[in-house]
Amino acid sequence: MRIEAGLTLECGQSLGPIDIAYCAHGTLNPARDNAILVCHALTGDQYVAAPHPLTGKPGWWSRMVGPGLPIDTDRFFVLCTNVLGGCMGSTGPRSIGPKGEPWGTEFPPITIRDMVRAQALLLDHFGIDRLFAAIGGSMGGMQVLEWVATYPERVFAAMPIATAPYHSAQNIAFNEVSRQAIFADPEWHGGRYWAHDTVPARGLAVARMMAHITYLSEEALAAKFGRRVRREARAAAGSSTGGALGTASLFGEMFEVESYLRHQGSSFVRRFDANSYLTITRALDYFDLSAAFDGDFAAPFRGVKTRFCVVSLSSDWLFPTSASRSLVRALNRAGVNVSFVEIETDRGHDAFLLDEPDLDRTMRGFLNGAAEQAGLNRGDSEPGDSGDSA
Amino acid sequence: MRIEAGLTLECGQSLGPIDIAYCAHGTLNPARDNAILVCHALTGDQYVAAPHPLTGKPGWWSRMVGPGLPIDTDRFFVLCTNVLGGCMGSTGPRSIGPKGEPWGTEFPPITIRDMVRAQALLLDHFGIDRLFAAIGGSMGGMQVLEWVATYPERVFAAMPIATAPYHSAQNIAFNEVSRQAIFADPEWHGGRYWAHDTVPARGLAVARMMAHITYLSEEALAAKFGRRVRREARAAAGSSTGGALGTASLFGEMFEVESYLRHQGSSFVRRFDANSYLTITRALDYFDLSAAFDGDFAAPFRGVKTRFCVVSLSSDWLFPTSASRSLVRALNRAGVNVSFVEIETDRGHDAFLLDEPDLDRTMRGFLNGAAEQAGLNRGDSEPGDSGDSA
Repeated sequence: MRIEAGLTLECGQSLGPIDIAYCAHGTLNPARDNAILVCHALTGDQYVAAPHPLTGKPGWWSRMVGPGLPIDTDRFFVLCTNVLGGCMGSTGPRSIGPKGEPWGTEFPPITIRDMVRAQALLLDHFGIDRLFAAIGGSMGGMQVLEWVATYPERVFAAMPIATAPYHSAQNIAFNEVSRQAIFADPEWHGGRYWAHDTVPARGLAVARMMAHITYLSEEALAAKFGRRVRREARAAAGSSTGGALGTASLFGEMFEVESYLRHQGSSFVRRFDANSYLTITRALDYFDLSAAFDGDFAAPFRGVKTRFCVVSLSSDWLFPTSASRSLVRALNRAGVNVSFVEIETDRGHDAFLLDEPDLDRTMRGFLNGAAEQAGLNRGDSEPGDSGDSA
Repeated sequence: MRIEAGLTLECGQSLGPIDIAYCAHGTLNPARDNAILVCHALTGDQYVAAPHPLTGKPGWWSRMVGPGLPIDTDRFFVLCTNVLGGCMGSTGPRSIGPKGEPWGTEFPPITIRDMVRAQALLLDHFGIDRLFAAIGGSMGGMQVLEWVATYPERVFAAMPIATAPYHSAQNIAFNEVSRQAIFADPEWHGGRYWAHDTVPARGLAVARMMAHITYLSEEALAAKFGRRVRREARAAAGSSTGGALGTASLFGEMFEVESYLRHQGSSFVRRFDANSYLTITRALDYFDLSAAFDGDFAAPFRGVKTRFCVVSLSSDWLFPTSASRSLVRALNRAGVNVSFVEIETDRGHDAFLLDEPDLDRTMRGFLNGAAEQAGLNRGDSEPGDSGDSA
């Protein structure tokens, strides 16, 4: 959707008109109060429950969002937008800028709040005054938090998953290394790779590979690969290396984990733009809800009526449970209605995208309870009945 | 030192003659039983207690090794060798190979055991039948373990610090990303960068930056940098970003942690060879003491008389305490004399190189006790008295 008026960004620069690409599932009821905004993570997009047009793969949360699923599109109207700064149709570094060529590195710096304000413009377009719920994991969870902090009246229920109210020093450091990997690629061309009909594929793949390690727990990596050596490398055996030596060359793919990471890296570069990666990682790094409040994470939530369910994943070391606990403490200090669930899983940060029945149950339970409180439970097939909840 | 006979490597290839560069401190007593081998980590070298010839910085463990220090050179004869495959004088990828040019990527794959067997040749040269102690952290600790597994009669006491009896899937994955970062550098030239009078500095810096994050705990990163924004970026303020926006460009150094990592990366490339980095990370990845024993980590230590003190660091997530505990359990199963100390520190893996009084005390206590058991305590100033301990 094109928003002609555009948006004045936090950095002060005006951007506009802007495009906000989105997918919608389910039906918006006449009261327009059954909308759920699902927010995507760093490398996600709007294809939450529909096949991805470039990869043909199912939507990234197709096991969560759909008819009869925990985020039930028979009941709820589910919106998912490509974030501002992204590369799947929303305005971002790949869009044509004022010079008649792609913005590239001259695309203005974007914040999580800018992403949220762009989403709010889309809701205005739909006439949705208040979201029934905002839900998201990782960077999606940051958007959920920023939604409540920026538009407290516009979010009835919020579920931030595997996230934190600020980006940690370690997370910033990992992002910085991934940016440096992109800059180091000979095909980077100062960000004008499009003019050279190329992409910094190797640098972007290295960035993705490193990030991917941080998305998995040691348990998940070990369970998936352990020290298993690829069959072709196994032919001959060195006595102390379990067969890792022998015919395998020094630079071949010795361990299965390496092969997997290389695949992850190379499949990623086919669908993602390097300048978007830079823009969005910067947005993550800027994120600190307490910055305007002298380090007080409770301040942005004082007086907020939104019902929260904060979810963490026990083996997530990128956004550890301790970060979620500190968020819960801040919400408690602010007097906000909050419940907290730590999902027991050994699959690390990425577990929120995987088959975790406990997360499904938590999602169903929270949305059912919140729908009752919102007066949404009188059957969406009789939309006339829901007029009193507006 | 040149060893004319060379060495047949685990991969089956013969390498020779080989050079083993080393530093020695203290005096070898006439009984030749007061020698301590200190083993260096991935990017360390033989300059354990002497200034580094390229950087001018003090030795990497100069706070631990010296007169009156925990590894007391008034008492012990301390040897530290540059590992086989290294780039500070020992035979490695930068050495001239059979084609009359540097080996580069054609340098044969090296294992931790190969490194240890090269060190054993140096001990033979000194006429040292048995080390009083083998000590090392991280990859140095792997060498300590391999010493005992390969030459159980030649090590009286062993202190592996912040290490593991195998390289984990996560560690292999991080190493693979660092290798890919080097390969992605336009100055890599298939490993023949020396022929182009260049080095893959950016790729190597990215590798080092990533590794450096894994050496620090989140606490250490946060304490060192937190989210502090560099002064020049602080000039103007964006409301939700604590001043991170404003004058700072999207690709400038926004947070202090980034500036630090960039410095770490660039100072490293001045002293380290990319092909050595590849060779040594591969050696780490191959390491698995149980490989020849069907996954049994106790097997290599059965019947071993060496006294062990296993040391872990509480906030080390690269070689976590759980890895040391599993080593201790294996040593217990093998009936080996082992004590275990977890040093409480919030500084992560790198803490073993830093001022940690608890580590100093542990080192002194263990070496004192072992020296007594070895009959080394009758005053090294009267070497004639120590004849009975041979």
